[in-house]
Amino acid sequence: MNIKETEFLSVPGLRQATCCSETKYIGRDDLLLIVLDKNSIISGCLTQSSAPSAPVLWCREKLKLIQNSTENIVLLVNAGNANAFTGNEGAFACYKKAGVLSKLFACSSSNILFASTGVIGEKLDVNPIISKLPLLKNSLSEKNFSAAASAILTTDTKIKGFSKKIIIEDKIVTLSGFAKGSGMIYPNMATMLAFIFTDYCLDHKTLSKFTKKAVDNSFNRISVDGDTSTSDSVFVGSTKKVDVGDHKTFDDRANKIFYQALEEGMIDLAKLIILDGEGATKFVEIIVKRAKTKALAKEIAFSIANSLLVKTAIAGEDANWGRIVMAIGKTQKKFDEEKLKIYFQNLLLTESGQARKEINEEKLKKELEKKHIEVVVDLDNGKQKFVAWTSDLTEKYVKINADYRS
Amino acid sequence: MNIKETEFLSVPGLRQATCCSETKYIGRDDLLLIVLDKNSIISGCLTQSSAPSAPVLWCREKLKLIQNSTENIVLLVNAGNANAFTGNEGAFACYKKAGVLSKLFACSSSNILFASTGVIGEKLDVNPIISKLPLLKNSLSEKNFSAAASAILTTDTKIKGFSKKIIIEDKIVTLSGFAKGSGMIYPNMATMLAFIFTDYCLDHKTLSKFTKKAVDNSFNRISVDGDTSTSDSVFVGSTKKVDVGDHKTFDDRANKIFYQALEEGMIDLAKLIILDGEGATKFVEIIVKRAKTKALAKEIAFSIANSLLVKTAIAGEDANWGRIVMAIGKTQKKFDEEKLKIYFQNLLLTESGQARKEINEEKLKKELEKKHIEVVVDLDNGKQKFVAWTSDLTEKYVKINADYRS
Repeated sequence: MNIKETEFLSVPGLRQATCCSETKYIGRDDLLLIVLDKNSIISGCLTQSSAPSAPVLWCREKLKLIQNSTENIVLLVNAGNANAFTGNEGAFACYKKAGVLSKLFACSSSNILFASTGVIGEKLDVNPIISKLPLLKNSLSEKNFSAAASAILTTDTKIKGFSKKIIIEDKIVTLSGFAKGSGMIYPNMATMLAFIFTDYCLDHKTLSKFTKKAVDNSFNRISVDGDTSTSDSVFVGSTKKVDVGDHKTFDDRANKIFYQALEEGMIDLAKLIILDGEGATKFVEIIVKRAKTKALAKEIAFSIANSLLVKTAIAGEDANWGRIVMAIGKTQKKFDEEKLKIYFQNLLLTESGQARKEINEEKLKKELEKKHIEVVVDLDNGKQKFVAWTSDLTEKYVKINADYRS
Repeated sequence: MNIKETEFLSVPGLRQATCCSETKYIGRDDLLLIVLDKNSIISGCLTQSSAPSAPVLWCREKLKLIQNSTENIVLLVNAGNANAFTGNEGAFACYKKAGVLSKLFACSSSNILFASTGVIGEKLDVNPIISKLPLLKNSLSEKNFSAAASAILTTDTKIKGFSKKIIIEDKIVTLSGFAKGSGMIYPNMATMLAFIFTDYCLDHKTLSKFTKKAVDNSFNRISVDGDTSTSDSVFVGSTKKVDVGDHKTFDDRANKIFYQALEEGMIDLAKLIILDGEGATKFVEIIVKRAKTKALAKEIAFSIANSLLVKTAIAGEDANWGRIVMAIGKTQKKFDEEKLKIYFQNLLLTESGQARKEINEEKLKKELEKKHIEVVVDLDNGKQKFVAWTSDLTEKYVKINADYRS
């Protein structure tokens, strides 16, 4: 699923550049400039936290304004400092950066977007960043995807990307994206940033609709630790270079093919985030099915996905399915114990409201040693389903997070 | 706050006995029989999980029936097996034990209560337990408090108890209690059992009212890991041996003194549970004040208390107050960043929606090395307050829980 450094495909009309901002990290690039050609469009999904970062507040406003722009669209991303809970100074940092960028690219400041990730509550020093902007502008290239995917990382251990060419109405469309995130991961959305770009020409309204739907089916299904960040942002931009012809409706055949590829790409990124979850050793898929409502299926799925006791048991390869029962019960939502079926991988563990009589413990043990664990909760009380993705919880998670700030 | 083994005061009219049930643990007592004299009363608070254990289901029914009993009240408690999600067989186990106990003590089976704690989903073998009951009956004594407090433990590392004599209307009243619990700890209530006994004479209705109120102010304020058990139970019994005279109202002066002592005892037990939280090294008090509503204060307090990122930072003695902002924002409830004040111990860390300019980092570091950490969130938007108690989250928690079942 993961991408090798050489495999990123360029998106015509999209250029990127990276450098070291000298604000936090030493000896690595942590500042990323992304520029979309004139006539591009962009849409975004931002954190639902009630303590959003300055860049999120900035983007909330600007994303409404950039619809069909005849000027460049510019994104500036930094890693190491979230510029969150930084008060007026945080907002002022965005204004200052936007002022310089709008001159450099001769565009309105509403065409400029920001994303910042890192420590919350530390003042972001914009001067070193601003001094790097001319240099970044000069090194913009369509080839810099790998460097871009790397520059946005914080505690991540690897870059996370996808890239593909798809054929739509006999034309070749490119879709490439990358993300960061490995802790503070929980909908809506997760401590994560994602940037996805295409040359497929579609209208802004459709792009926004597709972005929201694909985020719901990917990033909004994952949880590492149940914590929601102040900075989560997903951006999807199109340079509109490949025009397959008039779109009669937002869900015409061409758009459907594009949407499918977009959603698959986001799901890849979401899963990569889980796989790189802080200290994670296993990918865990929680499938809650045959629930009365989707909301109930989702509530139960995340109650399980966020349970420390479930996640530590999976880390220990201990088939402690009793903790799944606990996590269901914790929702305080009624369910029929007699009907409930819990499976680890394909092994049924419960029947008639109790442990199944004949469990092949040896086979179960072997299954739990795998890296991909599937937990199925069958409520047998309806038709709705929800799938959540999470990781196990190891001592390493604690080690990473006990001393992050310093 | 903790109690030495010798310090438990007997409660006249209450006898206890312990032994090894030979169902789970070897070489330690894990079965506890408690018998209250005739004319006693008892009230209880049980888990709000929608997957309650067989003993919880049993007690839900019986607690309504035992009001003013002329027969003994009998409690049987076992540690190691929760008898939860055990289907009809789990219920049948309760019936079988009750049948034998009601003969032994010549009382109705509605006067018999159960509590079980341990692994969920394993069948409880009642035969070894039943075979021990005559022996237990013969060794009942008013002196067995320490043994009782010890027999109910699972992953706990120490016994948790309180004991006191109070003077009410010139008479000496005794109040002694003990609890277990160190993981799966979150309201309502926590993976915990608590048994509190007194000889103070009051009516059943008042006792029930007091029990509920005191539980709300103690056990319902604590969280170790945000997980809710299938088995939580608190029982408060009175042998009514010390009669201070007619109670005109439930909140007359005598009852008020008694209530105060009861609540203090429960708070002591709740705090002891946190202090013995799995892998915990610090006691953390989260105080959310000047909120618009109590519900909001509570939601924010538990969002902080349950945040892995907050708890790991405290374990690492890292003043990462940005994670407190994250946890507030995660509730998606609006608040005024400009007005928000966050304190670690007595040190103010934020002002005007950003980090405070002059923070004495050295002093802060010293404060965070302490065992008792106080986090104050002042919303400056109302008059309501909620206090939650939690622990830090260490690698040891993960180690304990990765391999509990086996």
